Amino acid sequence: MQKTIRSQALIYRKFGDPLKVLQLETVEVPAEPGSGECLVEWLASPINPLDINRIQGNYAVRAELPVIGGSEGVGRVVKAGSGSRFKSGDHVTIFSANTPIWTEFGVVDDDELVKLDNRIPLDLAATLMINPPTAWIMLKKYVNLQKGDYIIQNSANSGVGRSVIEMCKALGYKSINIVRNRQNIEALKTDLWRIGADHVFTEEEFKGTSRQFLKSINVRPKLALNGVGGKSALQISSVLERGGTCVTYGGMSKKAHEFTTSALVFNDICVRGVAVGMWARQEEHLDEWNLCVDEVQKLAVAGKITAIPMEKVVLADHKTAIQKSLEGRSIKQLFVINSKASASHI
Amino acid sequence: MQKTIRSQALIYRKFGDPLKVLQLETVEVPAEPGSGECLVEWLASPINPLDINRIQGNYAVRAELPVIGGSEGVGRVVKAGSGSRFKSGDHVTIFSANTPIWTEFGVVDDDELVKLDNRIPLDLAATLMINPPTAWIMLKKYVNLQKGDYIIQNSANSGVGRSVIEMCKALGYKSINIVRNRQNIEALKTDLWRIGADHVFTEEEFKGTSRQFLKSINVRPKLALNGVGGKSALQISSVLERGGTCVTYGGMSKKAHEFTTSALVFNDICVRGVAVGMWARQEEHLDEWNLCVDEVQKLAVAGKITAIPMEKVVLADHKTAIQKSLEGRSIKQLFVINSKASASHI
Repeated sequence: MQKTIRSQALIYRKFGDPLKVLQLETVEVPAEPGSGECLVEWLASPINPLDINRIQGNYAVRAELPVIGGSEGVGRVVKAGSGSRFKSGDHVTIFSANTPIWTEFGVVDDDELVKLDNRIPLDLAATLMINPPTAWIMLKKYVNLQKGDYIIQNSANSGVGRSVIEMCKALGYKSINIVRNRQNIEALKTDLWRIGADHVFTEEEFKGTSRQFLKSINVRPKLALNGVGGKSALQISSVLERGGTCVTYGGMSKKAHEFTTSALVFNDICVRGVAVGMWARQEEHLDEWNLCVDEVQKLAVAGKITAIPMEKVVLADHKTAIQKSLEGRSIKQLFVINSKASASHI
Repeated sequence: MQKTIRSQALIYRKFGDPLKVLQLETVEVPAEPGSGECLVEWLASPINPLDINRIQGNYAVRAELPVIGGSEGVGRVVKAGSGSRFKSGDHVTIFSANTPIWTEFGVVDDDELVKLDNRIPLDLAATLMINPPTAWIMLKKYVNLQKGDYIIQNSANSGVGRSVIEMCKALGYKSINIVRNRQNIEALKTDLWRIGADHVFTEEEFKGTSRQFLKSINVRPKLALNGVGGKSALQISSVLERGGTCVTYGGMSKKAHEFTTSALVFNDICVRGVAVGMWARQEEHLDEWNLCVDEVQKLAVAGKITAIPMEKVVLADHKTAIQKSLEGRSIKQLFVINSKASASHI
């Protein structure tokens, strides 16, 4: 009889309200990984909007029930099966939406695992595969930026936005950052300056000052990064230099992205979009994706990109964490899964 | 003393309301062109929106007053100066906004003249340098279309739209054409089918039927051509195939151009813009521009592109013609300038 270990896991047996269908249960996990597999102890995993959508059954591809939640995270290899390219103690993450992560232990196929540098702090490692690669691809693959060149972005305090700011700082590009006005706007600005933003404006401030500001820096941004849409896309794309590029990665405003005739026709801008998951899975991007994962890790090890602010919670407190995620007003929630094993590191 | 010939010309001595400032006057034109110049007898010239804007003083670059109107047209070389690359009888057009055209005779520098095939009908020759090249560039320079491939466009009954339809027909591409609903919509559809449209829909019809229609043709358009903006841009760009391109050449709705997150991020479309005048004047496009002018002329000679419907008027009736152009409800107005010389040809 196969030996198993008991593992606490957040599991759902039907699609619906995550507060109702998600349950903390004990599952049995094989103690011995097979050939080309690893027994992984999961350490930390964020609650992403994708996770909520999947549990609600709103995601394009529905998994076969029952499902253990989670789509991004960091784990440690406990035991590597025969022929595995990993070894015990390796930190790993995944880049696939089909691997159960909200569980203390799981047996995972090598093909789904990505080796992470063990020196990367666990909260950053748990959120390394979506936001920083999105920033890296947008900064590296559309425009040939040189040190000192300017980029402009909206949604500058989002996960991607913060990665963009840190990466610009690390790569020598200058970032112009637009955020929505809010209470404590000065604290937010200070926070973004602290992580390396060169300029921070609210939408209203930039509307009033953009002409004067662009005159003062004497150049135009070559690249605009748009996670918002609506008039905000128009705002950042309208100040691009001739022939500049606007890359869209999200539509937080839930409005269509707007671009002026003047920007498109007379300023000859190019408008593109990217979804990092789809991009990375395209055969022709394989080498670039590996380079991206490598460079992102080097920046993480060097402390040049850091984890976004997150609230740490244990699996048992999932209802509170999901509630906060659904309300969308709190900072991102990070499950610390194997708290005994990793609390001191996170 | 230099010999001169008397020429009737539409001239303005101050910027303002074209109905007031534009005057038919007699000017003296040198009878002998200098070295590298031609004496040109102008035959026909349309009233373009650009002409109205220039007279009103609304155009970006203001000419030095007094100015003879016109920006596009066809003429015949009466006498070529020494060293000119033209000869008497050559049909010519210009591609520059600074050459006086609304005059019976003018002396023009060789550098501003473009040789036209004399077999091209004069009404088409008079309007050959903006709309057909815009269509050609959009169809040829952004996507590698093969025979049988589909394009979709809005503003399909505009000058550019009609060129697109005819050129698609000539090049073997299939065109899906969207127009705004109007009285006599069936007559308009019949007219567009007559010049080669494969499919014609009103915006409302396409909204209701696009899914079913696209299923019926079993492919998606590779290219969307947008002269309107607003939700119309969204409509035609949303049905593109993955990685397709939307090229904007105008913004008739005076609204910003809208694109969905889904089209940009998940369908990976590319959004571009083009202004044929600026495109043609870029050093790196010189060879392609010459090829474009050549191919457009061949299509015109072969009868594969035709003149848009226009009302022919003489210079003396300029007030009526300008009035109709300002109101924008009539068909385009075409000045037949040297009516004695050319009436039988137009």
